[in-house]
Amino acid sequence: MTKHSLSRRKMLGLLGALPIVSETLLHAAAAPAQGATPAGLPSWNEGATKQSILDFVAAVTREGSPDFVPPAERIATFDNDGTLWVEHPMYTQMAFALDRVKALAPLHPEWKDTQPFKAALEGDMKTLAASGEQGLMALLVATHTGMTADEFQKIVLDWIATARDPRFKRPYTDLAYLPMIELLGFLRANGFKTFIASGGGVEFMRPWTERVYGVPPEQVVGSSIKTRFQMRDGRPLLFRLAEVNFIDDGAGKPVGINEHIGRRPIAAFGNSDGDLEMLQWTTMSGGRRLGLIVHHTDATREYAYDRETSVGRLDKALEAAALNRWTVVDMKKDWKRVFAFE
Amino acid sequence: MTKHSLSRRKMLGLLGALPIVSETLLHAAAAPAQGATPAGLPSWNEGATKQSILDFVAAVTREGSPDFVPPAERIATFDNDGTLWVEHPMYTQMAFALDRVKALAPLHPEWKDTQPFKAALEGDMKTLAASGEQGLMALLVATHTGMTADEFQKIVLDWIATARDPRFKRPYTDLAYLPMIELLGFLRANGFKTFIASGGGVEFMRPWTERVYGVPPEQVVGSSIKTRFQMRDGRPLLFRLAEVNFIDDGAGKPVGINEHIGRRPIAAFGNSDGDLEMLQWTTMSGGRRLGLIVHHTDATREYAYDRETSVGRLDKALEAAALNRWTVVDMKKDWKRVFAFE
Repeated sequence: MTKHSLSRRKMLGLLGALPIVSETLLHAAAAPAQGATPAGLPSWNEGATKQSILDFVAAVTREGSPDFVPPAERIATFDNDGTLWVEHPMYTQMAFALDRVKALAPLHPEWKDTQPFKAALEGDMKTLAASGEQGLMALLVATHTGMTADEFQKIVLDWIATARDPRFKRPYTDLAYLPMIELLGFLRANGFKTFIASGGGVEFMRPWTERVYGVPPEQVVGSSIKTRFQMRDGRPLLFRLAEVNFIDDGAGKPVGINEHIGRRPIAAFGNSDGDLEMLQWTTMSGGRRLGLIVHHTDATREYAYDRETSVGRLDKALEAAALNRWTVVDMKKDWKRVFAFE
Repeated sequence: MTKHSLSRRKMLGLLGALPIVSETLLHAAAAPAQGATPAGLPSWNEGATKQSILDFVAAVTREGSPDFVPPAERIATFDNDGTLWVEHPMYTQMAFALDRVKALAPLHPEWKDTQPFKAALEGDMKTLAASGEQGLMALLVATHTGMTADEFQKIVLDWIATARDPRFKRPYTDLAYLPMIELLGFLRANGFKTFIASGGGVEFMRPWTERVYGVPPEQVVGSSIKTRFQMRDGRPLLFRLAEVNFIDDGAGKPVGINEHIGRRPIAAFGNSDGDLEMLQWTTMSGGRRLGLIVHHTDATREYAYDRETSVGRLDKALEAAALNRWTVVDMKKDWKRVFAFE
């Protein structure tokens, strides 16, 4: 497997990396009828993993329990890519950026001969990755800035409604993990307020997180670019500038969570080293807390990866999980179903 | 009246200005028993102002109304200083900073001979103001940074519990406007989600906004300084750095609201030119919207000021109110009671 040193942080938290081809691209077939998400955690197999979640929720919600936490303080934060939906073979936001380059190419004939656009147009991911931070920043600026916030929202909504994941041949929002959607709902049913805290762009997520996860825009924390307020033809607008505002990844996650929420979560959910500090911040503060890591172990139904990947690398956080007794989900073993469409 | 050019923005949105002595410092006496806030808007006198609020809420909440707005989109944003509580003779956060200088002075014997600390210790507001942006930044750094987020929260909570406003001889949180507390509750009872969007420091407000306004920390948007995540003795913490992160004032308010909430409000409430862009952003977007300005017209019960003041200056926003048909509250005429303790 090719490895490149394009860390998520370096790519400004907004653009993904190389296509990492799993050994098996076989799609687990058999798609039973979809329906409303049932209560509880029916897509989780019985066992220590599921039990650790149930025990935690029981402990913090039972009045009179020494671990009781009042509803207002039941804050739970979820990473998005690789925790709530698929992040391989590349971050979905990267697929979005590549599609935007194709859509905008007729307006930029020079892109045919200019990197990183040439590579993006040709699907040459190796050259694209080799263009480094600078190249990816150019891609970000060309596809994510220079329009109003309202215009960008519409672009995202149109794309997410029509784009298809190349392996599953489905809208990307179908690639949300059913067990995690159930978990979000289970926590909310127990008085939790659920937030997303993602390295992805906040304005890339907000248009669809309410529909897919039940998480409203104001409960999404993410990376952002700067915007400027201005009046144009007597109408106020926010213009998206070619400047990074905040990277909500790694040590930035506790910072972003504190800025946005102003409370320390009592439960946090991640899948990679980019979630390490969020998990530390959440769980190492005294009191009963839940830290959980989704470990991608199922190459058949989804993907299998941890240390040997540049997208969603899980190394230090897996070590810390053992030390801090965080729950580690073995996707293959712990999840009865991965997707609602199965 | 002395006028200085210390704009709120220049003072980093965090520190206030000169003591502006009203002609009347007389305190309207007679304090009837306080109780639970009643439903509706009982502290508002009947008239066009109150009616404009009632009409707006009826229009956007009545199913089938052409102006109907689904509950999830009923976002209301409130400025704090001068809109929800008293901002004269100086921003409460400025009083906090001055008290902190006094509390910290024993650790800094050099402050007795160093500006702006000497002026702060002597209560010499004229010299303090003359120290300009640089002096006020030094005051901010000395009093608001160099500790953890948890430590700062405790400092604020201790101060707000014990400090007293010099005119009313009461805790500052008693100086919240009863009609506005009723309005917050009335909107929430009608499915609105109420946010604060203040030029004040977000970590100065969050410790007490839930108790005073019913607005939880995660619904407070404000100015902020940068923080850094670090581990100390095996415990994670956020350290407050001597660097401004964001100024949530003027054209920064729509930016902060968009970053934090990700939806455009349908109602906004302010009292000064620092709220102009928030009101424009909210109301000039098509659809039935409410913009409201609290005009300080009651020198007897509170203060009377607009154009001729450096704290809460109301000039351009008052002009824009006429053009855009925003509701202007005449505090003297429209409010039956100003404070709960009256």
